[in-house]
Amino acid sequence: MTPPPVTHRATAPQILARCRDLVRPALAEAVQRLHPWHAEMAAFSLGWSTADGRPVTGAQGKGVRQALALLSAEAAGAPAKDAVVGAVAVELIHVFSLLHDDIMDGDETRRQRATVWKVYGTGPAILAGDALFALAVRTLADAPGVHSATAVRHLAGTLTDLVRGQAEDLRFESRPWTGPESVQPHEYRWMAEHKTGALLGCAAGLGGVLAGAPATTVDALARAGRHLGVAFQAVDDLLGIWGDPQVTGKPVHSDLRRLKKTYPVLAALATDHPAARRLATLLGTGNPLDRTTARRAADLAEEAGGRSATLAEAHQQLEGARRSLDGVPLAPAALGEILALLPFFVDRTM
Amino acid sequence: MTPPPVTHRATAPQILARCRDLVRPALAEAVQRLHPWHAEMAAFSLGWSTADGRPVTGAQGKGVRQALALLSAEAAGAPAKDAVVGAVAVELIHVFSLLHDDIMDGDETRRQRATVWKVYGTGPAILAGDALFALAVRTLADAPGVHSATAVRHLAGTLTDLVRGQAEDLRFESRPWTGPESVQPHEYRWMAEHKTGALLGCAAGLGGVLAGAPATTVDALARAGRHLGVAFQAVDDLLGIWGDPQVTGKPVHSDLRRLKKTYPVLAALATDHPAARRLATLLGTGNPLDRTTARRAADLAEEAGGRSATLAEAHQQLEGARRSLDGVPLAPAALGEILALLPFFVDRTM
Repeated sequence: MTPPPVTHRATAPQILARCRDLVRPALAEAVQRLHPWHAEMAAFSLGWSTADGRPVTGAQGKGVRQALALLSAEAAGAPAKDAVVGAVAVELIHVFSLLHDDIMDGDETRRQRATVWKVYGTGPAILAGDALFALAVRTLADAPGVHSATAVRHLAGTLTDLVRGQAEDLRFESRPWTGPESVQPHEYRWMAEHKTGALLGCAAGLGGVLAGAPATTVDALARAGRHLGVAFQAVDDLLGIWGDPQVTGKPVHSDLRRLKKTYPVLAALATDHPAARRLATLLGTGNPLDRTTARRAADLAEEAGGRSATLAEAHQQLEGARRSLDGVPLAPAALGEILALLPFFVDRTM
Repeated sequence: MTPPPVTHRATAPQILARCRDLVRPALAEAVQRLHPWHAEMAAFSLGWSTADGRPVTGAQGKGVRQALALLSAEAAGAPAKDAVVGAVAVELIHVFSLLHDDIMDGDETRRQRATVWKVYGTGPAILAGDALFALAVRTLADAPGVHSATAVRHLAGTLTDLVRGQAEDLRFESRPWTGPESVQPHEYRWMAEHKTGALLGCAAGLGGVLAGAPATTVDALARAGRHLGVAFQAVDDLLGIWGDPQVTGKPVHSDLRRLKKTYPVLAALATDHPAARRLATLLGTGNPLDRTTARRAADLAEEAGGRSATLAEAHQQLEGARRSLDGVPLAPAALGEILALLPFFVDRTM
């Protein structure tokens, strides 16, 4: 009698690395199809090169979107390579959205480097974003195989969701912190599901589409991805306030200082804790906060329960993602890898 | 014996109006699918409403792109309505490109009104452009019928060409007026064929695609459209220098004053006329021109033959458009209307 096979369960970093290695050559090839100027900006934004074009080794994004696309295809019974074109499209859209969002939000640094518009100028960064957007659509539209048209439809729906989410996020800025017009946690959730969740949902859904999965499976995968997006955004907000700037690469308390509506603050203000009232007073002047006041605001948000409410929200979204995949006919090994990635969405430090 | 039927040949304005009437309801419906904020900016940019949302009647763009889409479908043997979805996509892309280009070029007025970024801010205008881009792709991707996937591929190719053209136009700004590094007329032609021609070519090609025309017919229509685009851009440059600002809606000599590389100036500088040398000296300081110097530059460009060379170029491009359609099996009535539109591309005053 032979012993049962030893199962080597891959860790989240191993899973992400395997997927990055599969996608990287195709993504590099796609970027090379851009105008050389735009290829340079894309490579800089992807962390592949410095602003003066020297290659960078090692530093790369986490790659959760591309991983989700590949694992979803495997879960739907196809080899990961079938979804590489979808992963490439999603990564291109991700870079497009970073380029444009950094301009809209006035962000000057990302991952401890200057943002593209700071290095290359606003006009060139807008156009490079447009070029990446166009290339993403073209990559899917020109993909061989019978699923290309469905994949493009899937991406097109995502893109309209994504801009709606970003529009709401921008509109939040002009709304008050308190009172009947204030932004409520459920509105934030809607915004995050569109702004961040749409693309993660697209990644997972595209994996299913390119694997030829039935619509119900595609929907389930996409729904799981959207939940993960809300979790991801909530944790992003947490790290923006209580994360280590040396690790996150974001300036300390930058969201707080410029009065951005983030989940921890909204959740704190939604309580009737005394600290919430003090926090509302601090924020209500409408003036950007100085360093000391921002730190005080962070403490008050924590005291009013904003930090724990955000973590609870993130965990609930993970649970939503798990539930979305419950009972869906998926290959166990790949499903296991998707589930192994989930805690990473909440436990990450950058 | 009955007399031969009297043929009522429609004039260019009549043809454009008929096509606008066919497209307008579908375009309005598409715009209503945007986030309300983006719908407002789109309606403003389309000339349908004022900045405070009041409807405007009468004032509309010329609509050459939508007309080309519809007439091309008719020429390929289908009813115009089959191409309405293509015309809508092309118009959405046109507005997207206006929104983004006006930011990149720093243009503050268009058609005698403030540009979208001046009224709504840079960030919102970037995002509204992205939303229009996404909606254009979605409109074609979701179109019923068997030609949707081909239409999306056609649009995706156009979009990558369009951003390449705009990239070259931006790069021209940092190149010198004279010497081996200077921008040559043939480079301008390439830029205009991509920046402006790609979308007119897309309109004509989409008409063919949505009519189910064979690839050779689609290619011929698209090629004709690209020629028209170069003619259109060259005449745009002419009007920017010698047009009536009251009619064009553009500030007088604005391209000259901020040293934009336009065909008339490049063509003038490419001659060895003494006026060309004086023009090069005026422009060569690299400083924006004041009103008087700009007028002097316009006179010198005319003296060196830049104005007539541009008109000749435009006429040659019209000839190229006609040649592209020669011998292509097209319905005579619709082809007649396309040909009736051609002079309009050169003779227009706005």
